[in-house]
Amino acid sequence: MTSKLIAIVAGVGPGTGASVARKFAKTYPVVLLARKPENYESLASEINKSGGKAIGVSTDVSSQDSLKNALDAIRKEFGNDVGAAAAIFNASGSFLRKPFLEIDASVFEQSLNVSALGSILFSQAFLPLLLKGKEQGSQHPPTLIFTGATASVKSNAQMASFSTGKWALRALSQSLAKEFGPQGIHVAHAIIDGVIDIPRTKEWLKDLGPEAKLSSDGIADDYWYLHTQPATNFTWEIDTRPAVEKW
Amino acid sequence: MTSKLIAIVAGVGPGTGASVARKFAKTYPVVLLARKPENYESLASEINKSGGKAIGVSTDVSSQDSLKNALDAIRKEFGNDVGAAAAIFNASGSFLRKPFLEIDASVFEQSLNVSALGSILFSQAFLPLLLKGKEQGSQHPPTLIFTGATASVKSNAQMASFSTGKWALRALSQSLAKEFGPQGIHVAHAIIDGVIDIPRTKEWLKDLGPEAKLSSDGIADDYWYLHTQPATNFTWEIDTRPAVEKW
Amino acid sequence: MTSKLIAIVAGVGPGTGASVARKFAKTYPVVLLARKPENYESLASEINKSGGKAIGVSTDVSSQDSLKNALDAIRKEFGNDVGAAAAIFNASGSFLRKPFLEIDASVFEQSLNVSALGSILFSQAFLPLLLKGKEQGSQHPPTLIFTGATASVKSNAQMASFSTGKWALRALSQSLAKEFGPQGIHVAHAIIDGVIDIPRTKEWLKDLGPEAKLSSDGIADDYWYLHTQPATNFTWEIDTRPAVEKW
Amino acid sequence: MTSKLIAIVAGVGPGTGASVARKFAKTYPVVLLARKPENYESLASEINKSGGKAIGVSTDVSSQDSLKNALDAIRKEFGNDVGAAAAIFNASGSFLRKPFLEIDASVFEQSLNVSALGSILFSQAFLPLLLKGKEQGSQHPPTLIFTGATASVKSNAQMASFSTGKWALRALSQSLAKEFGPQGIHVAHAIIDGVIDIPRTKEWLKDLGPEAKLSSDGIADDYWYLHTQPATNFTWEIDTRPAVEKW
Repeated sequence: MTSKLIAIVAGVGPGTGASVARKFAKTYPVVLLARKPENYESLASEINKSGGKAIGVSTDVSSQDSLKNALDAIRKEFGNDVGAAAAIFNASGSFLRKPFLEIDASVFEQSLNVSALGSILFSQAFLPLLLKGKEQGSQHPPTLIFTGATASVKSNAQMASFSTGKWALRALSQSLAKEFGPQGIHVAHAIIDGVIDIPRTKEWLKDLGPEAKLSSDGIADDYWYLHTQPATNFTWEIDTRPAVEKW
Repeated sequence: MTSKLIAIVAGVGPGTGASVARKFAKTYPVVLLARKPENYESLASEINKSGGKAIGVSTDVSSQDSLKNALDAIRKEFGNDVGAAAAIFNASGSFLRKPFLEIDASVFEQSLNVSALGSILFSQAFLPLLLKGKEQGSQHPPTLIFTGATASVKSNAQMASFSTGKWALRALSQSLAKEFGPQGIHVAHAIIDGVIDIPRTKEWLKDLGPEAKLSSDGIADDYWYLHTQPATNFTWEIDTRPAVEKW
Repeated sequence: MTSKLIAIVAGVGPGTGASVARKFAKTYPVVLLARKPENYESLASEINKSGGKAIGVSTDVSSQDSLKNALDAIRKEFGNDVGAAAAIFNASGSFLRKPFLEIDASVFEQSLNVSALGSILFSQAFLPLLLKGKEQGSQHPPTLIFTGATASVKSNAQMASFSTGKWALRALSQSLAKEFGPQGIHVAHAIIDGVIDIPRTKEWLKDLGPEAKLSSDGIADDYWYLHTQPATNFTWEIDTRPAVEKW
Repeated sequence: MTSKLIAIVAGVGPGTGASVARKFAKTYPVVLLARKPENYESLASEINKSGGKAIGVSTDVSSQDSLKNALDAIRKEFGNDVGAAAAIFNASGSFLRKPFLEIDASVFEQSLNVSALGSILFSQAFLPLLLKGKEQGSQHPPTLIFTGATASVKSNAQMASFSTGKWALRALSQSLAKEFGPQGIHVAHAIIDGVIDIPRTKEWLKDLGPEAKLSSDGIADDYWYLHTQPATNFTWEIDTRPAVEKW
């Protein structure tokens, strides 16, 4: 791996975030952002041991100060002039599936703070690095990818504490795609429609067979494919689901 | 006017809010909510003088405390058991049409606080009154209407500080329509696509003729029509624009 | 009723078509189009007996010749210079809910011939009368309304013989709204999402209560409301469903 | 190339069709369908000379007989038991961008016959081969891809003779994705939003720079990528446009 450009992944956990980090780490040094260090520590050392380069920074994407701190850590590690080849926003606030009037306002607020405000702050923090990556001659157009969900396009009963933030995130990604596409930055949004196959979901959907859950490595392949599209052929949005999923 | 049920209008200003308040004041006592008293004072006295009943309460919809205060004022005026026939959320945060990286994070935050969090808090405050209105035998299904915009379905370059909140608002309205429809509450969303004809826009679009701007009284007619739909025929969403509008 | 302008309703049957015809017949002479005379005969005589004016013409909207014949009959009755205030396309081809590979191609063809080609031919036949209605000083902007369905925005498994035509119809209505709006013609599309309460559906959804089915008179009210919107406030699309409908 | 499974491409011309055929020909014998032999002859010989295998069959996708004839030719060449790994529908009827009332009905009819009926007939003809490909152990899930356009999701003024068919096509693809996904067939739809860089468009958009037009080879890469997705991660829809495209 000889790239001077880095890839940043926010929202690293056991599923999509880790798979995406591993995939991009084959080509770029990766920066792993999560609030809790236990979410990135073993992944960072796994990547570092297997010939890649990874650093983790404890970061709350809903806080400008915390993102500034992450940027400082990145520049300390990779130099003040560091550019980025990719920035992937995979964070989600927690939410509750309950009757609307039984949910405390703080739940909505926290969810919006991560999905809506957090995605904005993340973009403001890392788009300058992506633009620098473009100047520095990135092999592929620098790419900003947002992870969406079924709830990004459908807002079901009792799901508002999730969907409000996810719809806002999708709006952000569309606006940024239109503004930064002409500047050579590829902005994309992925509707991940289904259950992701991770340890926590091991027992779910078992009756539907072994292919009923999304592979997070498959999602990482999708993100990498989006990253490699040329400037003549940018995809803004994909939706992805298991073949057997009802939709 | 003999209705015991009230109508609440948040985001009263010179355009849609005032027209909607006047329209609903023909049938219901109306509560006018706006941050600045100058936005509702003359309207309230106009309605009170012309045989209707209106009170104004200075309210910040992005603050739970402020909404609690509004509820107290409403109960003081109309009784602890007051029910509502309609609640209309017409508030919007301010936003900036500028390059994304030149907009201070506080602008996004304030816009989300009104359109996304504010619409949630408003709904949590007034859905209980709408449910009470239903119990108390409202003539028409109690109605919760949200005002959207072009930016509710399209997120253009440099418009993210507006569209993120508006997409979140639309998600909220769809989720609430699905949850509260079966409880007899009509939740609707109006995509107002165009310039509204108010004093501030007097000189705009003049070359397109006298019908190039939306009539706010026309919007009020639409909201009233939605309010009168029976439970067998609820419309969730309408889009409305001048005949000459390009879209 | 003193209007010189007429209203045309295609696809007159026991539900929406008849209700719409009755509603518009309170103001305009109505022309009832259906392939089978038994679908309009009793309705026409009901309207004629109750002080309105109606003629029925056996018409296949998928045939240009048949529509030409309908135009001849209309001009014979109302004069060569007759203008229209409203034209409502409520026809649907029959379809089959079966595995895709078990449906004969003729079913798809026939469905497309009515919903897609038929709506185009209907529009080409009657837009000139609507434009004439505008010239002749119609009280409300002349209105062209298309009836859609759940399948106009969602294309479920085994529903392609219905949805392909309905999506095409919706595309037509959007294009015509954009082209003819600036010419003063109001083009609208109604997504009727649910079961309509007609004799044939009497036993359906009984367990969901008396309000689980759409009232066709309610749909007619919606269409009339759309018709009365001023040129400053045209709604292109509404969706309408029972309060208890899952969506 | 040792695959026994074939790939079928309908609508072979100088752009997307040819690029897709070349791409899939690296792995599969390809069948090139177009009405005019001059659209596939040189491509077939190019593929055959460069180590691939291609046959062309003059086919009108809007005719069941013509498709039956194509199937006969395929079975004659590849055996009665031949299965398919991919079938790509890239055909489009011609259309006119003119005022709606100036377009002859035959133009709409012909366009619907290709995009709407043609895509249905094509699917009925080749889905059985894709299902056979699955039985025969295809390496990747057999894939049915439909080419869409900007007009598949937006229906502009004067574009109805194109958009009606394209919306119908998109409806078909969604319904088939839902029905055949659970059977292991990957059905996808690509919204190609922009001008494709082919000889005929050489002089177009020159002022927007060398990247203002879509690369048809890039589209072929997208289709191939879709083809290689595993059954746990099927993408139904992508949109693709040049970075500088306004949308």
